[in-house]
Amino acid sequence: MNETAPDTDLLAVTLARTLAHEHVADIVETLNEQDEATITRVLAELPFERAVEVLDQPEFTTAAEMLERLPEGRAGALLSAMSADRAADVFQEFDDETRQRLSGRIDRQTRSDLSKLLAYPERSAGSIMTTEFVSVPSNWTVQQTLDHIRRVERSRETVYAIYVLDSVTRKIVRAVSLRRLIAGDPEAPVESVVPARKPITVAPEVDREEVARLITKYDLLAVPVVDAQEHVIGIVTFDDVIDAMIAETTEDVQKLGGMEALDQPYNEIGFTAMIRKRAGWLSILLMGEMLTASAMQFFEDELEKAIVLTLFIPLIMSAGGNSGSQATSLIIRALALREVRLKDWWRVALRELPTGVTLGIILGLIGVVRIALWQWAGLYDYGPHWVLIAATVGAALLGIVTFGSLAGSMLPFALKRLGFDPASASAPFVATLVDVTGLIIYFGIAAVILSGTLL
Amino acid sequence: MNETAPDTDLLAVTLARTLAHEHVADIVETLNEQDEATITRVLAELPFERAVEVLDQPEFTTAAEMLERLPEGRAGALLSAMSADRAADVFQEFDDETRQRLSGRIDRQTRSDLSKLLAYPERSAGSIMTTEFVSVPSNWTVQQTLDHIRRVERSRETVYAIYVLDSVTRKIVRAVSLRRLIAGDPEAPVESVVPARKPITVAPEVDREEVARLITKYDLLAVPVVDAQEHVIGIVTFDDVIDAMIAETTEDVQKLGGMEALDQPYNEIGFTAMIRKRAGWLSILLMGEMLTASAMQFFEDELEKAIVLTLFIPLIMSAGGNSGSQATSLIIRALALREVRLKDWWRVALRELPTGVTLGIILGLIGVVRIALWQWAGLYDYGPHWVLIAATVGAALLGIVTFGSLAGSMLPFALKRLGFDPASASAPFVATLVDVTGLIIYFGIAAVILSGTLL
Repeated sequence: MNETAPDTDLLAVTLARTLAHEHVADIVETLNEQDEATITRVLAELPFERAVEVLDQPEFTTAAEMLERLPEGRAGALLSAMSADRAADVFQEFDDETRQRLSGRIDRQTRSDLSKLLAYPERSAGSIMTTEFVSVPSNWTVQQTLDHIRRVERSRETVYAIYVLDSVTRKIVRAVSLRRLIAGDPEAPVESVVPARKPITVAPEVDREEVARLITKYDLLAVPVVDAQEHVIGIVTFDDVIDAMIAETTEDVQKLGGMEALDQPYNEIGFTAMIRKRAGWLSILLMGEMLTASAMQFFEDELEKAIVLTLFIPLIMSAGGNSGSQATSLIIRALALREVRLKDWWRVALRELPTGVTLGIILGLIGVVRIALWQWAGLYDYGPHWVLIAATVGAALLGIVTFGSLAGSMLPFALKRLGFDPASASAPFVATLVDVTGLIIYFGIAAVILSGTLL
Repeated sequence: MNETAPDTDLLAVTLARTLAHEHVADIVETLNEQDEATITRVLAELPFERAVEVLDQPEFTTAAEMLERLPEGRAGALLSAMSADRAADVFQEFDDETRQRLSGRIDRQTRSDLSKLLAYPERSAGSIMTTEFVSVPSNWTVQQTLDHIRRVERSRETVYAIYVLDSVTRKIVRAVSLRRLIAGDPEAPVESVVPARKPITVAPEVDREEVARLITKYDLLAVPVVDAQEHVIGIVTFDDVIDAMIAETTEDVQKLGGMEALDQPYNEIGFTAMIRKRAGWLSILLMGEMLTASAMQFFEDELEKAIVLTLFIPLIMSAGGNSGSQATSLIIRALALREVRLKDWWRVALRELPTGVTLGIILGLIGVVRIALWQWAGLYDYGPHWVLIAATVGAALLGIVTFGSLAGSMLPFALKRLGFDPASASAPFVATLVDVTGLIIYFGIAAVILSGTLL
């Protein structure tokens, strides 16, 4: 595995030289397209600091494999120099053997940081925070702080804000941005350059979505993560949050499409994993949809008497599914943006009811016109009772679209109330839910309108 | 309209005093819950700089109405002091009369900035950029630059990076972050503190999604917008990009749900606007779905002979729609994240084909087992040919799920190729597309398997 052909060697050395001066994001993009042997050689050839920068990029997808392939000494040094949050991510990808082997090669501080980070639940602030940040005691001056930053700048991933800690209790008292610091009087105490207000902080257990909401709301570059004693234990930076937001959106879109979230890029997920993520929901939905067969068995007499009714089953079911899917995606998004909250469910219901009725009237009219038009133009003969059939279809569309809008909008609330992610209310889920009810509404209305004539 | 009751007055004054020391995002949250009269009074009472900060928040939804209600002098002063990109947004909400009235009250520089910003297309870098940024000539030292920042800090929205311009041509040559500047030797030339690399820039016409991609890829705090002469004309900051990303996600989720994007919060959009955004797609989909009625008319003979076939129509159609909706949402997201590109369509097709077949086999087996189970348990009697019926349903499920996966994954590519937004390929759209084909597949398979027995 560690042998490389001379060709690869030459290519890798040349590549490493060319890349040394590129932006790190571009290096990563180029590396991601190479084979493993070449990437390993390039990482060995790149200046140490550049190699660390490359490994620090979450976009560099083969970081774990590369560190496994590199000589232990270099791998350990690189892991120790990487930002702690990225090192923790990479560590999670290692198998047990590699984890043990490389653990001995990283320095004590990094090892202790890593074990703390790895203990936090997935998707929490603690799991995406970095432990490298700049803090100063509250009795320092602006100039002392600036001198301190000058010394540590190279070793800190992110000096966006400086956290001022009480000089005795070490509790966080202020967050000072760099620009405020530069604009401040050098002799003034560091805490005097910002308004006397407690900084926004989060606990390590807080979900990353909540962190994203705070960073967005307060336009922060980073938010400090504090423990129960209000000591800063790390920071979550805006770029981690952007990455988290993109991942959450991907999850939401995939769930809305009626599947489990892939958690991996489309190109990289294996065949069996892909089937597993998709087959589960498809099977559940199919079994739910089997209730339609049972519902139709129940109406078999009506079906045999008026075969013409079957012609409109797909039409009516899809109208219900579509209106439900609209309402669901609207409410999922409004809940995610906190435009509506759980307690607003009845307000939404009061809004969706007239909306559903109006949409139902529009679709019902289209349905009636379609039947009348076909009858009139001689495209199809619905028989002597075609007016009653048109009325049945129109009324069924009105009922189903109203029901679909209402059920679709209430489902995310119900899921949230039960402690599930409202985004699990996928379009296919709603459609299935509405289909069975839709059939019952359709045949119920048919029984009333057509009784004595067709039925 | 401008009269306020003494009660409101007292409330507003108290509120203004309490709020003066809160974080601006919290002031906005409190204000958004008040009625218009109170908000106007609070804005009049707040210290000028705080009022500007409030108006600068995109989350402050009534900014335009408030500026209309305030005395012209104060409104003009506030508009002149606001960040240019926000002032431009607010200006776009004014009616013509207000725009004209307040135009005369803002200072010349702001007026010229505004007219430039308003000329850029919606959703472009130019339309979300701010014209306030810090630039210095390349022959300045680090110390000169720091002194300059100290002077302008208060009047610039965002000093995240300093843009170094060629001292003769004024073209952008470097982007220097604050932390690099602080760490640099005060006597060194400002451009020496960063690697000799051209900064990432965008043209003003570039779509905001592309700007978001660059900021995310390169972990930038802001990206400079440059004209054809490489002169910096503004910057787009990471918080504008986060706001834009949230808006884009909302649009994508709403489109995926089968409707036009609302462009307004769920709570605020009017009833008729809501109906308009939802009825359009519902009506189009209904008309598309009418093809199912035509398809079924075509198979009317088969339907009359074997009414048992109708029982499984909803089941089979929804399986096709669900698998299509999965594939579509997967590919929409993969395209948005650039995991796959337009030219990869055949690679995706080669992947979805075996995936669809496998999923189809799973669902087909479930369908066969369901029928066998009901027959065996005596829950329903499918007649002497129940094995053939089970085979028909199983084969149809296999065919339809395969077709659904393939059609659903190809639709976003087709839309993108035709110049549409791939995200317009909603779950309901795919379902409708697959429904008609699904019926034809079902009855086609039935004709082959059941010919001579039931048909």
